Amino acid sequence: MELDWLLTPPLPDTLPRQRVLYHRLREAILSGRLAPGTRLPASRSLAASLKIARNTVLFAYEQLTAEGCLWADRQGTRVASLPERATPPASSGHSPVTRLRLAARAAAVLQPEPAREAAALPFAPGTPDYSAFPFRTWRACQERAWRDAGWRQLGYAAHGGDPVLREALAGHLTTVRGLPVDAAQIVITSGTQAALDLCARLLADHGDTVWAENPGYLAARAVFGLAGLHIHDVPVDDEGLAPREGDWSGHPPRLIMITPSHQYPTGRVMPLPRRLALIARAHQAAAWIIEDDYDSEFRRAGPAPPALFGLQPDAPVVYAGTFSKTLYPGLRLGYLVLPHAIAADFARATTQAMRPGQGIEQRALADFIHRGYYTAHLRRMRGRYAARQSALRTALKEAFGSSVTLSGGEAGLHLVMWLPAGIRDGAVVARAATLGLGVRALSSYTRPPMTCNGLVLGYGNLAEGMLAEAVRRLGVAIEGFDGAGALADCRQPPPLAAN
Amino acid sequence: MELDWLLTPPLPDTLPRQRVLYHRLREAILSGRLAPGTRLPASRSLAASLKIARNTVLFAYEQLTAEGCLWADRQGTRVASLPERATPPASSGHSPVTRLRLAARAAAVLQPEPAREAAALPFAPGTPDYSAFPFRTWRACQERAWRDAGWRQLGYAAHGGDPVLREALAGHLTTVRGLPVDAAQIVITSGTQAALDLCARLLADHGDTVWAENPGYLAARAVFGLAGLHIHDVPVDDEGLAPREGDWSGHPPRLIMITPSHQYPTGRVMPLPRRLALIARAHQAAAWIIEDDYDSEFRRAGPAPPALFGLQPDAPVVYAGTFSKTLYPGLRLGYLVLPHAIAADFARATTQAMRPGQGIEQRALADFIHRGYYTAHLRRMRGRYAARQSALRTALKEAFGSSVTLSGGEAGLHLVMWLPAGIRDGAVVARAATLGLGVRALSSYTRPPMTCNGLVLGYGNLAEGMLAEAVRRLGVAIEGFDGAGALADCRQPPPLAAN
Repeated sequence: MELDWLLTPPLPDTLPRQRVLYHRLREAILSGRLAPGTRLPASRSLAASLKIARNTVLFAYEQLTAEGCLWADRQGTRVASLPERATPPASSGHSPVTRLRLAARAAAVLQPEPAREAAALPFAPGTPDYSAFPFRTWRACQERAWRDAGWRQLGYAAHGGDPVLREALAGHLTTVRGLPVDAAQIVITSGTQAALDLCARLLADHGDTVWAENPGYLAARAVFGLAGLHIHDVPVDDEGLAPREGDWSGHPPRLIMITPSHQYPTGRVMPLPRRLALIARAHQAAAWIIEDDYDSEFRRAGPAPPALFGLQPDAPVVYAGTFSKTLYPGLRLGYLVLPHAIAADFARATTQAMRPGQGIEQRALADFIHRGYYTAHLRRMRGRYAARQSALRTALKEAFGSSVTLSGGEAGLHLVMWLPAGIRDGAVVARAATLGLGVRALSSYTRPPMTCNGLVLGYGNLAEGMLAEAVRRLGVAIEGFDGAGALADCRQPPPLAAN
Repeated sequence: MELDWLLTPPLPDTLPRQRVLYHRLREAILSGRLAPGTRLPASRSLAASLKIARNTVLFAYEQLTAEGCLWADRQGTRVASLPERATPPASSGHSPVTRLRLAARAAAVLQPEPAREAAALPFAPGTPDYSAFPFRTWRACQERAWRDAGWRQLGYAAHGGDPVLREALAGHLTTVRGLPVDAAQIVITSGTQAALDLCARLLADHGDTVWAENPGYLAARAVFGLAGLHIHDVPVDDEGLAPREGDWSGHPPRLIMITPSHQYPTGRVMPLPRRLALIARAHQAAAWIIEDDYDSEFRRAGPAPPALFGLQPDAPVVYAGTFSKTLYPGLRLGYLVLPHAIAADFARATTQAMRPGQGIEQRALADFIHRGYYTAHLRRMRGRYAARQSALRTALKEAFGSSVTLSGGEAGLHLVMWLPAGIRDGAVVARAATLGLGVRALSSYTRPPMTCNGLVLGYGNLAEGMLAEAVRRLGVAIEGFDGAGALADCRQPPPLAAN
């Protein structure tokens, strides 16, 4: 039997020859080139005819026999009968490729969104100033964490996360945010998205209703949809989420997702009476409130508004925070603060759902907080972002008139410039993208029947040297639209009302 | 009006006094100590009476007014009327604490499981040898990654993960695992659990059926349950998953989860004919196969069995791999390899579902692979684990007789010692735990009607110096059970059959 083609191309010197011979024989069997029942030469004679070592052949024969491609009896080695290659059922009318598709629910996480590159452009919302991150200090904390690393840091995380980090964070939240928290209430997550995803799956069942702010945070909608929740949009007014009786009675919520301290993206702050009322109603409705406090660390004027979480014992509130904006997003560390009644179970469930780890990073972060670097970094960044925001406000007023309507900016990294109806924000954003700007359209965060028209302007990464040019380009993007001339006279209140 | 109690205890010097005053006033309002409508002293007079700066008072008043706790008119400042404190509805009969609970589906991820500490004990399955990890080399790779870090590494990850890592991994899988893969087919995940979770949610819909191996990997069941999938257990025989016609017709799968190259935990290897047959049937059933190849890197004899993924173009197979065992679990990096038909959508959906990051770690890992450190590390560990396994086999035979039935161990970090029916594995494991051993019961991975009775013995972290003592303690744990005397005569085939 002629098997010389097994040496075409010649067996390489760089890879184990036995592996290559094995692969070639297997391919020949799978493709049918060596038909079922074919008797192969004895290993000694094949080795001689191919001028290779007998062990090379033996290895390939043994491996293929073990896999069921060959079978050996006293007469020698034969090619086994293998199942037919799979073909899609003829009746289906689909080609195999069209059969390979994602599940229906994946549509929730396949929504159109800006390209990743836009996050690096001027005015991209939510992008911190990477250049200001204290790399050296952080690296030193990591260095120390590596020095002490054992199985606790290198293995899977403890329930709820590294105990030292939970302790450090509890202290930070108590003294800096005024949250009466102890470490057992904290669950470390790999960022806010993971935290919201956990809330959607552990606090609500398939088919339950979640209330989302309108306009609101799009990424939250994605995980709610993927979790099988029915999303009910509740309008936002000047004081944040503004549910009407019909919302409570017609769409009773299991979850209520809010950003009360700096509504995303409008920047509205929910006053205390509304916070208390919302807690009371949520309690009655057996609903959980998810309080996403994504940027209070950068609040400028006075202390942050009191978190819903701390307002009342046993309130049905879960508090979410993140290090993505205060340190850097790629770190992938955030946290949830939970009522005692569910904290331990939530932590255990998180372990089984995610098998979290990142022990080194968690220990480094604990060190970073303990040594006061975190507070110092926040203080520095608060000043820096405040200056950027103030410079941006001034530049916008200079460019578009002093009556231009701005909202937000009491915290965080972005503000909103409202546009008159004649200037469609989507068209401005499309044009701005061609000019290298990462600005977003307020309407893209909005669901009917609400209408909002404005620009979400991030300034986190807007260095002083870039500001004038960025605003000039924004002017070019707006210029020429119907109503652009009237922008300076835009005095109407922000159109945050349902049609 | 007497407000001296605002200074009890005295305002501290360490925290901003205005913050403390604000908090005390707010607490007094929320608690009702200051009743709605109460007129407060003018800021100047309160400051004078408390002997503090007027600005301190002004700040607190302004903040509380902004929050809606106070309101100011021309007559001065009054306490606002706030909503009643929430109380649970009287009719419900539940106390607030019992109302605060997790969703029903959370039960899937609240299963009993061994304490985390057990992972560090001798015989704990799946724990790699941390002491052998090349820390210095890895730290140097991280160092380089930090040096080059820009927004791409510090921000959120690109779709599918860092392109450099995907490229490096594609090369590795092609040359080392024989998988015909290109970078566009790879999605980096934060570990295998996250990968399985993504498969459960993106490849199957709520209520779909997933086939799980019986006995099988428990952590997979957790995420399948959380995803709302119906779990159908399919028995494992000596060649891995062994579905019968009734499984296909009565419980048509949308997902089929398998560990074909080293079944977990039995260590069976699925031969090629069954692999091909499974692909063909899955194709006909429009089911996805999830091929979890969790430990092929440590395969000892010959090349790993050919992955299902590479066997056939357009096969409905998703391949999952991890760095948890080859590097360390806390790193939280794993990957999926997907057919071209769904790879781009799967990557986009992963981005929206998880907002992945870990850019520095991904770049460091790419560097680690590129420079050949990864292959070298695998080679070294393969040798080390092979030696440990061989020493363990020898010691077990010495301790329990040469006919003791062992299975698995052709790859990975564990093997199975089957027990005669008289010695219940669960009882042995409970006793072994009190002796400081992390061994697991085979029955705990098994669902009725299957019965399996044996010990899952990890040797990844079983240093040579510990082996003899660990086996001695295992003997103590087994000693005295009915049938322990017969262990040496245990010749029955592993009881891998349904009742």
